[in-house]
Amino acid sequence: MSAIDFYFDFSSPYGYFASEQIDSIASKYGRTVAWHPYLMGAAMKMNQRKPLVHMPMFEEYSRRDLGRCARLLGIPYQTPSKFPVATVAACRAYYWLADRDSDSTKQLAHALFRAYFVDNLNISDPAVVVKIAAGVGINRNDLAAALEDQAVKDRVRQATDSAIEKKVFGSPFFVVDNEPFWGHDRIYQVEKWIETGGW
Amino acid sequence: MSAIDFYFDFSSPYGYFASEQIDSIASKYGRTVAWHPYLMGAAMKMNQRKPLVHMPMFEEYSRRDLGRCARLLGIPYQTPSKFPVATVAACRAYYWLADRDSDSTKQLAHALFRAYFVDNLNISDPAVVVKIAAGVGINRNDLAAALEDQAVKDRVRQATDSAIEKKVFGSPFFVVDNEPFWGHDRIYQVEKWIETGGW
Repeated sequence: MSAIDFYFDFSSPYGYFASEQIDSIASKYGRTVAWHPYLMGAAMKMNQRKPLVHMPMFEEYSRRDLGRCARLLGIPYQTPSKFPVATVAACRAYYWLADRDSDSTKQLAHALFRAYFVDNLNISDPAVVVKIAAGVGINRNDLAAALEDQAVKDRVRQATDSAIEKKVFGSPFFVVDNEPFWGHDRIYQVEKWIETGGW
Repeated sequence: MSAIDFYFDFSSPYGYFASEQIDSIASKYGRTVAWHPYLMGAAMKMNQRKPLVHMPMFEEYSRRDLGRCARLLGIPYQTPSKFPVATVAACRAYYWLADRDSDSTKQLAHALFRAYFVDNLNISDPAVVVKIAAGVGINRNDLAAALEDQAVKDRVRQATDSAIEKKVFGSPFFVVDNEPFWGHDRIYQVEKWIETGGW
């Protein structure tokens, strides 16, 4: 059976929640998960959407909902000081590593998500990304160079274009056997779809 | 204990799903539900939001998600030919009735929702609203006159202003003991909050 596709942006809190859950859900049914970070801003722009957090009534609600969801899920979470942030550097690090040591990419992704949503580190800063990556055993100098490499930049653009072509527009966004699911709040349906094959 | 507040717009499909579930959830815990239809367009405008269905990538996804949710919930649903529609007439009928025969308001609300989301009737048309109301025993002439009554118009505006003042901005939107929950996808948290008193 094909892998579950998991699309996300590193600055998406609901994407972070999903990242803490999706692999264990999939593995219950003998399935694997292919992770696809992308730059959601590009898709948002195409759809003329703004992050909810920038709208008057949503901001207060959104903070409350995130804290409440995190507590219910038992996932550590604190609202980052700066939100949202650009995730270009994080994405570049991810795809550069994916082409070299694909076994470590999820470890790096977890470290980036947790750095931002637990330790309040600004992952839009390439130096911060390098430091986080070093913490999971990645060579600092190699990665620092890679973040400025045109081929790596192109790789991230391709990943983002590919997500948009597949009609992915949010974070998290899942595709299970060609069936799309948008939002962390659909993760129970993702599980049910994997389990049942659809309804 | 106070009633669960349930805010919704009659043209909201997720509000319709919630209307089919919330009273039985609340009654499991000995709680009642106060229904508050309002004109969500006013809140959307304040937040510069557009209905998702008007955005390119969302439209196809949204139809799929609605059908999938309805099948999973076992709630009859078909996409209305015209969506969204203005719900001023439906709201006026609701609040006019609420001041006269509050026992029948939920029956009317169910009939309006089902007319729109099951029988594909255009509930933005006052004549259609009158016909649906007649089906649940409401006098046609009285209601037809009420729909043009300034006092009834004001009542709907007040209900909408009151919802916005309480920071309600979506449909469905629930308030449980001062705790706000936005979206049909949070209904499991609404239930858990009622059951546990919060976390």
